[in-house]
Amino acid sequence: MTIIIALDALTTNNEAIRSIVEETCDLVSGYKLGWPNIIGNNPIKPIEIIRNRCPNTLIVTDLKLADIYYIMLKILESFKWSMDAVIAHAFIGTTGALEELKYALEQHNIKLILVATMSHYGASEVMDNCITYITYVINQINPWGIVAPATRPKMINLFRKKLGKQVKILSPGVGAQGATPGSALKAGADYEIIGRMITLSDNPRKTVMQILQEHRKIY
Amino acid sequence: MTIIIALDALTTNNEAIRSIVEETCDLVSGYKLGWPNIIGNNPIKPIEIIRNRCPNTLIVTDLKLADIYYIMLKILESFKWSMDAVIAHAFIGTTGALEELKYALEQHNIKLILVATMSHYGASEVMDNCITYITYVINQINPWGIVAPATRPKMINLFRKKLGKQVKILSPGVGAQGATPGSALKAGADYEIIGRMITLSDNPRKTVMQILQEHRKIY
Repeated sequence: MTIIIALDALTTNNEAIRSIVEETCDLVSGYKLGWPNIIGNNPIKPIEIIRNRCPNTLIVTDLKLADIYYIMLKILESFKWSMDAVIAHAFIGTTGALEELKYALEQHNIKLILVATMSHYGASEVMDNCITYITYVINQINPWGIVAPATRPKMINLFRKKLGKQVKILSPGVGAQGATPGSALKAGADYEIIGRMITLSDNPRKTVMQILQEHRKIY
Repeated sequence: MTIIIALDALTTNNEAIRSIVEETCDLVSGYKLGWPNIIGNNPIKPIEIIRNRCPNTLIVTDLKLADIYYIMLKILESFKWSMDAVIAHAFIGTTGALEELKYALEQHNIKLILVATMSHYGASEVMDNCITYITYVINQINPWGIVAPATRPKMINLFRKKLGKQVKILSPGVGAQGATPGSALKAGADYEIIGRMITLSDNPRKTVMQILQEHRKIY
């Protein structure tokens, strides 16, 4: 399966999260929770809702962690380490940050996903210029997956070439941000992270099925 | 005044936050709330506690924002834009991220503080190597302040030279992370952000006064 649904737009509406998960569980690889789902919510609640309704799915918390390890571990303690995967930024480097994070996540059997570069235009100003250093960090940390944007498929292609086939590539930017369904897979991604296009759709299940039809043309 | 107290270590213990603020309000410039204070808490609550006990202080939410603008604005909506200042990462770039963030913060009269580089060793692997690009972003966005680490005072010095006297430099890394009180001010910072050394001390007020004594030797 090729879709991870980003739930950010539903904010703390746990009922809406439950409903989307029930409608789409059999069609997608996982769900991504972001800060808008967590602030002012019981942080464990949306994770439990997804887990109960869809036991075998991948629950990714997209915290875009970008701090010293002391703070990152404190944040994960607040979640009681209850997610399946966590997104952190590669650019923060290894010692004092990602090295300690990776080790702590391994103790809890949680996957680490590192942002290589992002989907908006501004990512070309710093991140795309620092790819050599970011790639060094990714190679050192050896995460389960990386994030690279559907909006600039060349970056997906480039990181696939640099990192090989082992690492999963998760790709945001499809739908509201402009990339078309399938474009990231075509460039070499394993998953397309799709949010508003599905969560704000009148018929989320139908939308997911339409996207999957596009994906099948590629595989 | 020269100290901003980082409250992260107190997590969601609002009583402990209230107590530290009452003991130190007249001695410090502001308070920094981080994710550990916010997850699982009413996000407005700690801000209100500080505001009520210390009306003229600077309340900084250290969210280390590092996402596309759509998500960053959603996060700030969850806080009802109730802080005085927000910390975001410079490395995410301008268009589609910091440009829109800056504009939205201005509408709510909130200061923007950009992380230039960080206090841990790993920051030297990517961020310190990308200073040219990070400085470009800071100059484009023209934030109220930047974050540069007390643990590598040369970086404070360098950004002061690059950015001039207008921008405020806030410097973490004093105390638990190894830098001595006063070391960042000496290198050109305006504020030292100090957390555990104060918040986990037996007598926070006394600790603050001892730090201020060191600071006075510099000015």
